Amino acid sequence: MDDSGPLGDIVISCRIRLARNIAGFQFFSHADAEQQAEVLSFIRDKVMAGELKKDLWYIDMSEISALEREMLTERHVISKQLAQSHGARAVALSHDESLAMMINEEDHLRLQVLASGLQLRENYVRINRVDTLLEGSLEFAFSPDYGYLTACPTNVGTGIRVSVMLHLPALKLLGQIDKVFRAAKDMHLAIRGLYGEGTEPAGDLYQLSNQITLGKTEEQIIDEFIRRTVEPVVEYERLARKKLLKDRFTVLSDKIYRAMGLLGHARMISSEEAMHLLSFVRLGINLELIKNIRLRDVNDIFLLTQPAHLQALSGKSLDAGARDEARAEFIRDRLSRN
Amino acid sequence: MDDSGPLGDIVISCRIRLARNIAGFQFFSHADAEQQAEVLSFIRDKVMAGELKKDLWYIDMSEISALEREMLTERHVISKQLAQSHGARAVALSHDESLAMMINEEDHLRLQVLASGLQLRENYVRINRVDTLLEGSLEFAFSPDYGYLTACPTNVGTGIRVSVMLHLPALKLLGQIDKVFRAAKDMHLAIRGLYGEGTEPAGDLYQLSNQITLGKTEEQIIDEFIRRTVEPVVEYERLARKKLLKDRFTVLSDKIYRAMGLLGHARMISSEEAMHLLSFVRLGINLELIKNIRLRDVNDIFLLTQPAHLQALSGKSLDAGARDEARAEFIRDRLSRN
Repeated sequence: MDDSGPLGDIVISCRIRLARNIAGFQFFSHADAEQQAEVLSFIRDKVMAGELKKDLWYIDMSEISALEREMLTERHVISKQLAQSHGARAVALSHDESLAMMINEEDHLRLQVLASGLQLRENYVRINRVDTLLEGSLEFAFSPDYGYLTACPTNVGTGIRVSVMLHLPALKLLGQIDKVFRAAKDMHLAIRGLYGEGTEPAGDLYQLSNQITLGKTEEQIIDEFIRRTVEPVVEYERLARKKLLKDRFTVLSDKIYRAMGLLGHARMISSEEAMHLLSFVRLGINLELIKNIRLRDVNDIFLLTQPAHLQALSGKSLDAGARDEARAEFIRDRLSRN
Repeated sequence: MDDSGPLGDIVISCRIRLARNIAGFQFFSHADAEQQAEVLSFIRDKVMAGELKKDLWYIDMSEISALEREMLTERHVISKQLAQSHGARAVALSHDESLAMMINEEDHLRLQVLASGLQLRENYVRINRVDTLLEGSLEFAFSPDYGYLTACPTNVGTGIRVSVMLHLPALKLLGQIDKVFRAAKDMHLAIRGLYGEGTEPAGDLYQLSNQITLGKTEEQIIDEFIRRTVEPVVEYERLARKKLLKDRFTVLSDKIYRAMGLLGHARMISSEEAMHLLSFVRLGINLELIKNIRLRDVNDIFLLTQPAHLQALSGKSLDAGARDEARAEFIRDRLSRN
């Protein structure tokens, strides 16, 4: 989320995920506890070996605290589902967190590669290499007719999910975000909030992802997703920003500077309000209206003021009220350093 | 409104007004234009003479612009009614604006003395002296049975209206302002907004005034108003402030500092929002949470960002949108000087 990638003013991050299952084992949801543990140990031994092993950090979900699981969710390294579930589950994570392999989430194995900006093609090269390496030691459930077999039929085929996190404050301000929703629906894409399925958009961040995994190659899916979805929406948001700068400059700058004023002065602030205000600050920096704050600070605040990170920073468990105070203090401190 | 008077942390200002009519002339509403002009010229000659004259500035309403009339209203020197009406009307005003005599408002003559803080007894001494001086040259309509005769029967008798402008943000925050309203009603007092009859409260400012003008002496009315109304409400607001400081310090300081943040950063701000935010800043200064802003600045902003003053400062007519921008700029500038 450091906005340094291509189209980073609008495409915050991109992700490719592959769903895989091991041939000869029951799907996770059909397996008993013993079988689940067996799959976990089987995959772990293959993943934490050879070339892959040296950059990976293996985390057994049963050995970490609820707070740590929540922190991994806030970092988009594991899914909410994995964080909140029990049993024989794990994640193997590269040190920079750009590669994550969840074991025993919905499928036996879910590979994900995250990058900042629009780097889906690069992500695919990388995830394909990891997938190929793993295929050297793991036999994936595969049908010549359908492709990779997955726990949920919506993933069958390539097992690929391609997604981008887009920052669309100008379309939101102009009341045009519904058009993006309609276009996404027409193109069989899912549009979601910050933390994936079932979450509400916050901070004007929208996660767009493909729904169709069958009947096309991975390269076709990625290429169409970029050309037909990401690039047009980016262009649309850019036009909206230009329109706001030209026609509604005062309204726009009022919102941006008010957000700065509130973040710099509040004594209590909810996570939702902080995200909402940080969205305007991010826009202000991208439009060069705010010059004394770096995107790096916005991103740090964004990540570190989420509930679990905030409690980890404070070194203690905080109730919602205490978190709102700690969050406000952290934000004031970070913004006043500039 | 400089908060320098007694109980100035809560009693912003106090006012005594006397309603008088000249014997032998029709009440204003029953007079034709010629008779109205005759009364005006008759009173002007008496007022602008002798001891009173040297400190007075005579303003003929028909000779000033709509903007100037509005400015006088914003300064609480004339009523909205006088500002918005036409015909033979005037105000004679002391140079510090603490004494004003409206000619041909509802009554032939309305004297008012304004002071900061709670100085009603001092105000009465002063207005009584002016009243006595005028009685040397003007014969007021007076009935031995009813006292001074006035255009509206609610003013008959003493013709006195005693009022205070109270700043009650803590009672408002605690949701206890309704109790003040109920108590005021029980005691036959009127409670109104910043600009008198028919206006909504803004900036947590409430104007309390007596309704009964008959059957008591002026001194009794004033004494009861102070002891039975002003002092208890002041005490009540002080208790509310203590309670907030003790039990809800974070909520309170959050509101106060957010107000500072918004006033210091907004690019557009309505008059209503500015008053609302300045109310918190005033409270913050009185509670010593804000130390780098003076009450004088708050009062200046309060007065000078009202629509007419703002246009006078800008040297041009501004529509509502342009006023909101000019207001925000003025406030940012004034606050950043500290």
